[in-house]
Amino acid sequence: MSDFWADQPALSSRLGKVRAAMGDVLLEDRFPLAGAVRDLVDANGKMLRPAFLLLAGDFGKHRAGLVPLAAAVELLHVATLIHDDIIDNADTRRGVPAVHARFGVKDAVLAGDWLFSRCFRLAAESSNPENARLLARLVGSICSEEIHQDLENFLWPRSVRNYLRKIAGKTAALFSLALRAGAQEAKAPARVVSILTRVGYDVGMAFQVMDDVLDFQATEGEMRKPVGKDLREGLCTLPLILALRSRPAAIEPHLSGQSMSDAAVAAVLTEVRASGALETARSHAARYTERALAELCRLPAGAPRDELRLVVEKLLARSS
Amino acid sequence: MSDFWADQPALSSRLGKVRAAMGDVLLEDRFPLAGAVRDLVDANGKMLRPAFLLLAGDFGKHRAGLVPLAAAVELLHVATLIHDDIIDNADTRRGVPAVHARFGVKDAVLAGDWLFSRCFRLAAESSNPENARLLARLVGSICSEEIHQDLENFLWPRSVRNYLRKIAGKTAALFSLALRAGAQEAKAPARVVSILTRVGYDVGMAFQVMDDVLDFQATEGEMRKPVGKDLREGLCTLPLILALRSRPAAIEPHLSGQSMSDAAVAAVLTEVRASGALETARSHAARYTERALAELCRLPAGAPRDELRLVVEKLLARSS
Repeated sequence: MSDFWADQPALSSRLGKVRAAMGDVLLEDRFPLAGAVRDLVDANGKMLRPAFLLLAGDFGKHRAGLVPLAAAVELLHVATLIHDDIIDNADTRRGVPAVHARFGVKDAVLAGDWLFSRCFRLAAESSNPENARLLARLVGSICSEEIHQDLENFLWPRSVRNYLRKIAGKTAALFSLALRAGAQEAKAPARVVSILTRVGYDVGMAFQVMDDVLDFQATEGEMRKPVGKDLREGLCTLPLILALRSRPAAIEPHLSGQSMSDAAVAAVLTEVRASGALETARSHAARYTERALAELCRLPAGAPRDELRLVVEKLLARSS
Repeated sequence: MSDFWADQPALSSRLGKVRAAMGDVLLEDRFPLAGAVRDLVDANGKMLRPAFLLLAGDFGKHRAGLVPLAAAVELLHVATLIHDDIIDNADTRRGVPAVHARFGVKDAVLAGDWLFSRCFRLAAESSNPENARLLARLVGSICSEEIHQDLENFLWPRSVRNYLRKIAGKTAALFSLALRAGAQEAKAPARVVSILTRVGYDVGMAFQVMDDVLDFQATEGEMRKPVGKDLREGLCTLPLILALRSRPAAIEPHLSGQSMSDAAVAAVLTEVRASGALETARSHAARYTERALAELCRLPAGAPRDELRLVVEKLLARSS
């Protein structure tokens, strides 16, 4: 388990149960690529989404169904990672070889599909039928936004609003679903469900903006993914959008409509870092974080709120 | 609509409603590839699976949920076609360019995922939560069998039992689910649900065996897919398994462990056709058809049974 949870041992132990539930799912049906998927699951992901789901569940009293539902949400996340890696032609994920690099595109497509099916099966067994519908709607929204994004790749669109809408439909929607589904499953009061849903949205927005900032500055050791990955894929994220406003002449010549050379990526990275755009993007993230913390204050005081606040603060500390 | 339904106008009109429901789903969420998927949906597929679902529903009294559920089952089928075509690197499907050939692998993976999500969402709205679970289990089984199959490609495994288990987990499972889900949704009596489930299984087995036979003999005009497609993909289906038993020396030298040249495909086609294996395989299919018709006799007499029998007979006439 990631040491992100070192100061929250009770939560860490509950996440161990979620991981065990995911392992049980992978053993079913003599699934041929169980080992490869298991490696990905075990590769030290933080399991943020199931953590949020469990914590939201603590605001209600019916907690029996939380672990399988948390497993479903994390399986969905792993399925999207497998398909993303095919799509991005990435060689490694979380430091282990990508599924498609080990078994070919065909089996990776199927492994992702299989995981989606397991995720929906777990959700369909949830006590609240609304959760299965939410999950299906979410997957649809993620796919739809991904395709929109793909159609814009290497076009370098410069609308902040467009960028925010895309990440709202993907990362923020997934975080928001995790909190909402946990609260609903545990039958938390409607007002609490709705506050938690908004907290998830704001946390997800902050998280994705910071992820996009880090792509311009992290070293491979820290992020375990190569710097400038988004640029190489022709993806125009917030730091680039902001930098293009302040120094278009310095950056535009390096933006190709088809692919980005190493030299072009390096040049754009340098320009973006020098432009102050990373700081501005961080302030966008900080605003979402502040909103999330303000929403949190409206929740009933007590251990669940304190625990949830601690996770939000740890997670988004990197935006400060 | 396919002229397969010309002599069943009432059913044809109900399938028109299913197609409209599928169209509505595709219009949701400003889904970017709706047009391409729509082309595939419109390209004259028989819509066999939704037809079976509707007909099974006629054995019960609650028919309001049948059309959306039938749309879900056909969307699932279309999703698997899109992913299959990526996997098989096929250029056309139903006479129109494959989605991945038009929009690239990335968008085709996402379009399939999106359709899966729509399918699960429709199923999750079904009045019977069991249906969503069945559908999720089915997708899992199909993916799992596909991966097993892929791992065996170009190994030319010769076990009839292994072959039957594979098609049972894919085609037969899908037909069986269509009939079972329709009957359950309409709240047909338990005994009827269980007979219809078996009918679906037998029809699916017969259908897939015949599909595999036709791959050895159809011309492109008839099937709208190239003859010998399975051989080219390294897939060992029943006719080849049977032919390898009677004339191994004539066939084995042509079976490569990596890929099949046009000459090798032509040679194997000739040998299989001359071996009598196609007739033996047809008799396997006929046995499943007979079993399906025998099961049908155990259903309550009346219009629903007659209509269902007509479809089974038309569908499997090609096995006689």
